Amino acid sequence: MRSVNRTTQGSEPRTVIRRLFETRDITEALGAPLSEADQTVQSMPDCSPTKWHRAHTTWFFETFVLGPHLAGYEPFDENYSYLFNSYYEQVGERYPRPRRGLVTRPGIEGIARYRRHVDDALHRLLDDADAETAAELAPLIELGINHEQQHQELLLMDIKNALTANLFDTAYDQRPHEPVGEVGPVGWHRLEGGTVSVGLEPVAPEETGSFRFDNEEPRHDVLVPSFELADRLVTCGEWLAFMEAGGYDEPTLWLSDGWYTRLSEEWQAPLYWSRSDDGWWIHTLTGSRPVDPNEPVCHISFYEADAYANWAGARLPTEFEWEHAALTARSTTGALLASDAIDGMSAVDSSRLHPDGAGRPSGALRQLIGDCWEWTGSPYRPYPGFSAPEGAIGEYNGKFMINTMVLRGGCALTPAGHERPTYRNFFHPHTRWHLSGVRLARD
Amino acid sequence: MRSVNRTTQGSEPRTVIRRLFETRDITEALGAPLSEADQTVQSMPDCSPTKWHRAHTTWFFETFVLGPHLAGYEPFDENYSYLFNSYYEQVGERYPRPRRGLVTRPGIEGIARYRRHVDDALHRLLDDADAETAAELAPLIELGINHEQQHQELLLMDIKNALTANLFDTAYDQRPHEPVGEVGPVGWHRLEGGTVSVGLEPVAPEETGSFRFDNEEPRHDVLVPSFELADRLVTCGEWLAFMEAGGYDEPTLWLSDGWYTRLSEEWQAPLYWSRSDDGWWIHTLTGSRPVDPNEPVCHISFYEADAYANWAGARLPTEFEWEHAALTARSTTGALLASDAIDGMSAVDSSRLHPDGAGRPSGALRQLIGDCWEWTGSPYRPYPGFSAPEGAIGEYNGKFMINTMVLRGGCALTPAGHERPTYRNFFHPHTRWHLSGVRLARD
Amino acid sequence: MRSVNRTTQGSEPRTVIRRLFETRDITEALGAPLSEADQTVQSMPDCSPTKWHRAHTTWFFETFVLGPHLAGYEPFDENYSYLFNSYYEQVGERYPRPRRGLVTRPGIEGIARYRRHVDDALHRLLDDADAETAAELAPLIELGINHEQQHQELLLMDIKNALTANLFDTAYDQRPHEPVGEVGPVGWHRLEGGTVSVGLEPVAPEETGSFRFDNEEPRHDVLVPSFELADRLVTCGEWLAFMEAGGYDEPTLWLSDGWYTRLSEEWQAPLYWSRSDDGWWIHTLTGSRPVDPNEPVCHISFYEADAYANWAGARLPTEFEWEHAALTARSTTGALLASDAIDGMSAVDSSRLHPDGAGRPSGALRQLIGDCWEWTGSPYRPYPGFSAPEGAIGEYNGKFMINTMVLRGGCALTPAGHERPTYRNFFHPHTRWHLSGVRLARD
Amino acid sequence: MRSVNRTTQGSEPRTVIRRLFETRDITEALGAPLSEADQTVQSMPDCSPTKWHRAHTTWFFETFVLGPHLAGYEPFDENYSYLFNSYYEQVGERYPRPRRGLVTRPGIEGIARYRRHVDDALHRLLDDADAETAAELAPLIELGINHEQQHQELLLMDIKNALTANLFDTAYDQRPHEPVGEVGPVGWHRLEGGTVSVGLEPVAPEETGSFRFDNEEPRHDVLVPSFELADRLVTCGEWLAFMEAGGYDEPTLWLSDGWYTRLSEEWQAPLYWSRSDDGWWIHTLTGSRPVDPNEPVCHISFYEADAYANWAGARLPTEFEWEHAALTARSTTGALLASDAIDGMSAVDSSRLHPDGAGRPSGALRQLIGDCWEWTGSPYRPYPGFSAPEGAIGEYNGKFMINTMVLRGGCALTPAGHERPTYRNFFHPHTRWHLSGVRLARD
Repeated sequence: MRSVNRTTQGSEPRTVIRRLFETRDITEALGAPLSEADQTVQSMPDCSPTKWHRAHTTWFFETFVLGPHLAGYEPFDENYSYLFNSYYEQVGERYPRPRRGLVTRPGIEGIARYRRHVDDALHRLLDDADAETAAELAPLIELGINHEQQHQELLLMDIKNALTANLFDTAYDQRPHEPVGEVGPVGWHRLEGGTVSVGLEPVAPEETGSFRFDNEEPRHDVLVPSFELADRLVTCGEWLAFMEAGGYDEPTLWLSDGWYTRLSEEWQAPLYWSRSDDGWWIHTLTGSRPVDPNEPVCHISFYEADAYANWAGARLPTEFEWEHAALTARSTTGALLASDAIDGMSAVDSSRLHPDGAGRPSGALRQLIGDCWEWTGSPYRPYPGFSAPEGAIGEYNGKFMINTMVLRGGCALTPAGHERPTYRNFFHPHTRWHLSGVRLARD
Repeated sequence: MRSVNRTTQGSEPRTVIRRLFETRDITEALGAPLSEADQTVQSMPDCSPTKWHRAHTTWFFETFVLGPHLAGYEPFDENYSYLFNSYYEQVGERYPRPRRGLVTRPGIEGIARYRRHVDDALHRLLDDADAETAAELAPLIELGINHEQQHQELLLMDIKNALTANLFDTAYDQRPHEPVGEVGPVGWHRLEGGTVSVGLEPVAPEETGSFRFDNEEPRHDVLVPSFELADRLVTCGEWLAFMEAGGYDEPTLWLSDGWYTRLSEEWQAPLYWSRSDDGWWIHTLTGSRPVDPNEPVCHISFYEADAYANWAGARLPTEFEWEHAALTARSTTGALLASDAIDGMSAVDSSRLHPDGAGRPSGALRQLIGDCWEWTGSPYRPYPGFSAPEGAIGEYNGKFMINTMVLRGGCALTPAGHERPTYRNFFHPHTRWHLSGVRLARD
Repeated sequence: MRSVNRTTQGSEPRTVIRRLFETRDITEALGAPLSEADQTVQSMPDCSPTKWHRAHTTWFFETFVLGPHLAGYEPFDENYSYLFNSYYEQVGERYPRPRRGLVTRPGIEGIARYRRHVDDALHRLLDDADAETAAELAPLIELGINHEQQHQELLLMDIKNALTANLFDTAYDQRPHEPVGEVGPVGWHRLEGGTVSVGLEPVAPEETGSFRFDNEEPRHDVLVPSFELADRLVTCGEWLAFMEAGGYDEPTLWLSDGWYTRLSEEWQAPLYWSRSDDGWWIHTLTGSRPVDPNEPVCHISFYEADAYANWAGARLPTEFEWEHAALTARSTTGALLASDAIDGMSAVDSSRLHPDGAGRPSGALRQLIGDCWEWTGSPYRPYPGFSAPEGAIGEYNGKFMINTMVLRGGCALTPAGHERPTYRNFFHPHTRWHLSGVRLARD
Repeated sequence: MRSVNRTTQGSEPRTVIRRLFETRDITEALGAPLSEADQTVQSMPDCSPTKWHRAHTTWFFETFVLGPHLAGYEPFDENYSYLFNSYYEQVGERYPRPRRGLVTRPGIEGIARYRRHVDDALHRLLDDADAETAAELAPLIELGINHEQQHQELLLMDIKNALTANLFDTAYDQRPHEPVGEVGPVGWHRLEGGTVSVGLEPVAPEETGSFRFDNEEPRHDVLVPSFELADRLVTCGEWLAFMEAGGYDEPTLWLSDGWYTRLSEEWQAPLYWSRSDDGWWIHTLTGSRPVDPNEPVCHISFYEADAYANWAGARLPTEFEWEHAALTARSTTGALLASDAIDGMSAVDSSRLHPDGAGRPSGALRQLIGDCWEWTGSPYRPYPGFSAPEGAIGEYNGKFMINTMVLRGGCALTPAGHERPTYRNFFHPHTRWHLSGVRLARD
């Protein structure tokens, strides 16, 4: 388990500022085990180099905080705005994303200097800020913290992908794998349907802190049917049964777009699985090892999750069924998910680089938070009345609300604080480099 | 206007059989104006040759009706199952879709013989069938009718696309264009929200006949907010204003996937528009002519519709908002849409090959049916409790429920009977060769 | 054998004019067995529709002969210049080549009218032309004849490719296949080296008539080593031995670009071969049948020819070695190749739609002319002192002198008169849809 | 000028061994100015990372020298054979070339250890080798030296390409650019034609040392016409005139494949040129600066060179014309090219990272050696009687003898010893990342 309380909690302005610098330090700690070569490469256009994540999160503060709010601030390097903007059209031209892995200058030490330059300026701006300024800047800082935390997760999933290109030396961290215990058969939890409030009020008291992304707003009612939800994620052992039953070769189990993707990509197993003489192996951030049948299956696309559910005579839950179940679990147990609490990402000894097993059946929903992002059957679309914030910040979430599916729950790499039941992650249905798994539902 | 009552109405078994042969004849009439060359080519993988539509709808009856139900039936040609299966995985291998335009044999007369062979066999099976057999086969025949009607619409939109390759001689029909009258400014209709029942009960009495597609079931409740709906479609004149305001060059109006599509496809206007020295021209099934500012804009992608709505300070309606409005309109007026009733597709003198204008403001919702398919903001997903029928027929709708958006309302090419308010059409958000338009909504 | 003397021979002006109309008629006869659908499609960008060949050769006369030389000539249709120009940059814009198969209008009867219109005008221009005019126009007419004859060969090789898309009905002509007799083991002919004159003098008396292409000029000396040349083409039986010995799987036999082409194209056999339960079958213009081990292997790329030669411990001849051998054979025998004389392409009963066998060893070089184009080891480059004619006509040959290899000898589809030993055909080393075979050489 | 005599000259066995270690050291010196990030990336499939060049040249000695000849030699790492084989099919599978830039492990220090491991073993094998062993191994060592020298040139041209991705910080070396002096108008040298011996005898006394590549053999006679050769390379000033005259927009100047490449690649100028407000700039290994009209144009494709020659009313020389001119120049002047002698590549102070100007007209041919590789009009094909050596070494040159054109003369980055007049370099006609220029010829 990653140790608890690695980052300060709370949304009071001075606390936010403290969390800002803690978050900035964690990013550097995540990059620390990696060589300059490791931090430079980009294995596919969806991914970005470690170095780029370190620079882009810094550019974010330079552009949206220091530029407008610190009088006399001088950008570290004028060219960095071009190099490290990600997709903010309103901020100007950007370096082409698929070529980020070709930028060798600045190197990792140059990026470290850039980060220190910006951190120093943030200290100048914030350390002695009066209460009014601190209160004014806190929401923007909070957004920057959450943005950087998202990139911490991306950094790890991207480097996981990149290191596979090395074939013979692919570990991010050398710690040994601890076997996962027996998880037992799946149990089904009944949830009563009805009118359910989902999402968050724009200005109301929050669930777990002052921050949420715009895509979680506004709070609104939906009708949820009565249904049953599996009490844990699908395991690798169950997935092997699907594979052995020919699930990857039976088109009637698949959505049409999914089947053509499976054919063109030649999928036969989850991403990072490879067949060896002694069975299936799995690549992880701590290296390669045999697949453990008790661990949850991970790195599957929506198409595969959906085909599996069809094969199993079940379906994926909608995002509102999932949220309804998570809120119900919390109100029942007094905490969201006692045994699965997300804790702070530990830069030095973070022990969770991979989803954990479900543990033994407990009568409660297991693994709701912090093992694998769970594919839902819900396309990612705006909530009724959604409106993006003004300006470049408004490009944050809304423009991706097409062709993507919602995932819920957080994964082993998700930073603390992102475990709230209203959190909406999203990916295209064909992508697999994120830690995505599947929990079944049925009517 | 296409003349009313071109096809027999009703769902009584003997009526269904009569409608079957009427439908079969209409398909042949639609192909009649086209040469063998016209009927052979395929302008892009999304489209199919006219000849292929004529053969595939025939294969459907051979495979699902004659083979299982007519004792001793001999297939016309064993190879046709390979050539003319569309996507039914359970029925076996298929000729690759993107190469359909290379099949020169059979020619159009060969296809006519194939159709006569199958029609003759259908007559043998059905003409003297006893009441029990007729009742048993009626649902399958009804599905075949509706399937063939959908292909009648596809045939026209596909040949519209193919004929553009001729550059200088592109008309399907030579009739002159009649100018569209003034439509006046848009009006906004207020709809009250609440719990609304949408879709159809699997076995209950129906809206307009006995038939519906599986994707319209089951009937279920949804929460619809109060909202306003435009009383007509967006016009070409309004679209020109969007173009002149730089709408195609302003990324912040667009969804991210939409913007990249617009860049790669170099969209600057709706499909079939071209700039001439004397302004914008439009290609239609009756040839090219100047764009009429009063006609509804057509052949736009979801991405363009969504960008336009953003520019106009509005949004697209959800599919349930649209259905709610249509049902309300019908209960208010005693008929769905008096002036816009869908009539039978006339093979001989069908006068509607293009969307009509909205007419003058009437106090009612105009153009709800039969001009342009209207993009909604709703991804195409299964209704709660949806399950596909068993067997190959079950591949009809469910497998396309990903990455597509729902359109409602029918277009000028849509056959009579498909105008029911529960009908769900769907296309990928980037496609444009269908007659798709946009109606705005706002909170 | 195709019957001899189907076209008039000779280069006297009035004879040229007679040959013009004979040639025009042959083109129409070649298209006659094909339906409108057959004549419309295009199976790949390298190929063109039959209809297009008929129109393009007509456009050639309209553009280069009638326009400049027939006072008051009106083009049949102004748009045809856009539709049927092939690659003459100086004549203006062209319809994009890969989309030629989408042009359905004009249909085949429209093309026939176009041809008659142009033929009528050619008659007006030429029938009563005085001697001076006839002499002035003869070279241009001769070029047009030879151009149209090249397109006759292209028409047949292109339709052979297109008809394969029909899978079950692929014959151009229904005549039965006559088995090829035993050809015996290969014999080796010794040729003495030295300084050899190759090509043709621009203005000097010619080899077989007044016409030659610019790429055959000027005549010049080259040094040819002493070498040995196989007395017949490689047979299908010998090719099967290469395949069975793993020739398609042994990279060291292949040129580097060839090996990557073989991998990406997944070549395992010559084009038009397919494996059946009872051995290898071959698609021909007269339908499919088992491969005959005595017939020459055909439809192979340069890469395959070169790999085969390496495997056989031999090499390909250079184009000058081939020309030297052909000239030597003629001077020795009194005729070029008595038993292999190219005769006129017969439109009605042409009996050669496929390469013939070599016959029994005769002590002479067999199959030098008229069975398969023979790959040489010579890249296609200009002869020393070559200069292209002025104007658009000058685009005829010179611009293709890169990345292509020279083939010599003519194939079964080559029109009479193109059998001269100086004739240089050329294709890219990866293409296979032409009737290309291989004859070995060794030092 | 690079200082002379940086590497030991001579082909006596002990001298060869001394040159081996000097060559190995130069490779390391070439990489030394580059960071780990710089050395890791690959900007396009044609290029390889610096790190990979360092490793591959080491793998060459491990595979072909140490493995077979040093008893008990243990490979440094078994996986390196997979990672660092380039294209030797006979040696086994290889890491896919287009993904070389994703290999982050080993890093640059790991590669340095690998090189020291192999160098130590080479010392053990060679330092105390008896005369017989030294004589036996000398040819293989010589091949390894020449192979590594070719990779030194590739290393520099590849890193030049890679560094451009940095946009704002692209220099390999920071030294200032020294302006090139006036070169004066081009002069034309008349060469008499006749039978000329080209290439080298396999075993005979050599031209400039004991080593030559297999593609230079065997020596043979060719007929060369009398012709004129320009006395210097085309300059950037002349190239600007071609650009301003619309040379890049006039298809009739271009070979057909060239024109389509120019369109698809959107060429408007040589590679590494970019238009600025104050005219054209050029990227070099020492950074960006304005184009100097007196320097030779460089980084052009064969297609561009050929189009330029057409525009200038001239042509490219053949490779034998070039060789004839170079041999004539040497026999006339007593040295090949006194003022242009190629000297040893200096790792520390090599002053030639870019082609130099021609200097003032001298009455002699200028720039024949060591500025730009000169495109010839000759396709790269085997000499008559060529046969590749047995075994994997035989894959060295012969397999690339298709679709490539010969270049002669060496460039500013070419190591000393590769300046012999018989040396045949080759590239595909569309590539530009090598230092290629153009010298005109005319009849």
